Amino acid sequence: MRKLNNLLGFIPSNVKIYKMAFRHKSVATQIKSGVKNSNERLEFLGDAVLGSVVAELLFKLYPYKDEGFLTEMRSKIVSRANLNQLSRKLGFNDLIEYDARMIGYQNKQGSLLGDAFEALIGAVYLDKGYEFTKEFLQTRIIKPHVDIHTLEMTETNFKSRLIEWCQHAGKEVSFMQTENPDGESAKMFSIKVYVDGEECGIGRDFNKKSAEKLAAEKACEYLKVLEI
Amino acid sequence: MRKLNNLLGFIPSNVKIYKMAFRHKSVATQIKSGVKNSNERLEFLGDAVLGSVVAELLFKLYPYKDEGFLTEMRSKIVSRANLNQLSRKLGFNDLIEYDARMIGYQNKQGSLLGDAFEALIGAVYLDKGYEFTKEFLQTRIIKPHVDIHTLEMTETNFKSRLIEWCQHAGKEVSFMQTENPDGESAKMFSIKVYVDGEECGIGRDFNKKSAEKLAAEKACEYLKVLEI
Repeated sequence: MRKLNNLLGFIPSNVKIYKMAFRHKSVATQIKSGVKNSNERLEFLGDAVLGSVVAELLFKLYPYKDEGFLTEMRSKIVSRANLNQLSRKLGFNDLIEYDARMIGYQNKQGSLLGDAFEALIGAVYLDKGYEFTKEFLQTRIIKPHVDIHTLEMTETNFKSRLIEWCQHAGKEVSFMQTENPDGESAKMFSIKVYVDGEECGIGRDFNKKSAEKLAAEKACEYLKVLEI
Repeated sequence: MRKLNNLLGFIPSNVKIYKMAFRHKSVATQIKSGVKNSNERLEFLGDAVLGSVVAELLFKLYPYKDEGFLTEMRSKIVSRANLNQLSRKLGFNDLIEYDARMIGYQNKQGSLLGDAFEALIGAVYLDKGYEFTKEFLQTRIIKPHVDIHTLEMTETNFKSRLIEWCQHAGKEVSFMQTENPDGESAKMFSIKVYVDGEECGIGRDFNKKSAEKLAAEKACEYLKVLEI
């Protein structure tokens, strides 16, 4: 309890939902047919509230950037990688209840942290409402722990990521436009990406750049190119 | 203005942002390098606020459903198809400013409506705050216009939707794997869908089921299969 109060910086009114926020499904018990008292439903709610708060923050922080930029920035801030890191910094390790046999299993512990973070936001929202949650997120979490301007520079574009990865690995990457199947609209672009001569992905879109990005994304998946 | 007031059921404080919510990029002017005074940024914000309001509504409406169910229900409610339909019901046609040469072009007008709906939610949020927007959405939009329990039954899987539609229409549908173009990875699946012998769509993916779904989605578009 003391740990939770320290983390939050306020005294929760409804302690039960905060406990639920830190309860992983591996230790949850069934409360009614099909539903467990784990943090998964709170995670759904918290994810949405977090998305909305971050959207407004970016909308106001960048008055002259278009919605493409705002969307990309938000997905960086609320990415699993970022939320996991944040939860680690905040000391969630000591608060989450889970079955120890889960640790290590496919690195699940990582997403366990980010999931609990979202669930906590859901709990704060149910306990204290939107304005309070927004204030909490902005002053207690984002301002001290999230470096938005560094994130702005981080590359999440799959095309750039693939190209960088190939440079590191000394592999040659090329994007080639291929013919469309018969009868297909001439406005459609089909782009294939080759790495060292092997076809690794194809992307199709009415916009050439989007087709390239899709192809690169598939290639990143196929080649297991992780975040840089 | 009168139309807007009727639609909203309240008097806007900041009329300018509501006007922006109904301004499509085709008629927007540039206000600063790279940014137009169109509704796209508001759409980004409104999409997030809408997602959050709908998440809470479902969270409370279905206390014994898991997060998978909640996620699916939300995506049905905020789907482009549903938002377009909603905007049409609400009479957005008369309010949106756009370049008439855009109409008909690849059915773009459809998404124009849903986009404006999200932008309007963004405008209400900026003008009146979260609690007001939530109340507005619940009492003025969702309760009278969205039949949540019917949506619960609606099939959003395009493959099932196409099959059902063909059964109704007494048409024969078949999915066939076709050969990949020369030099294409053997891991890629190309699936064509035929309705009464006519090719209606092709889907390509490294996963066979996904390729089928993509093909079905294209066929639904091509055949104008509406939601059932």
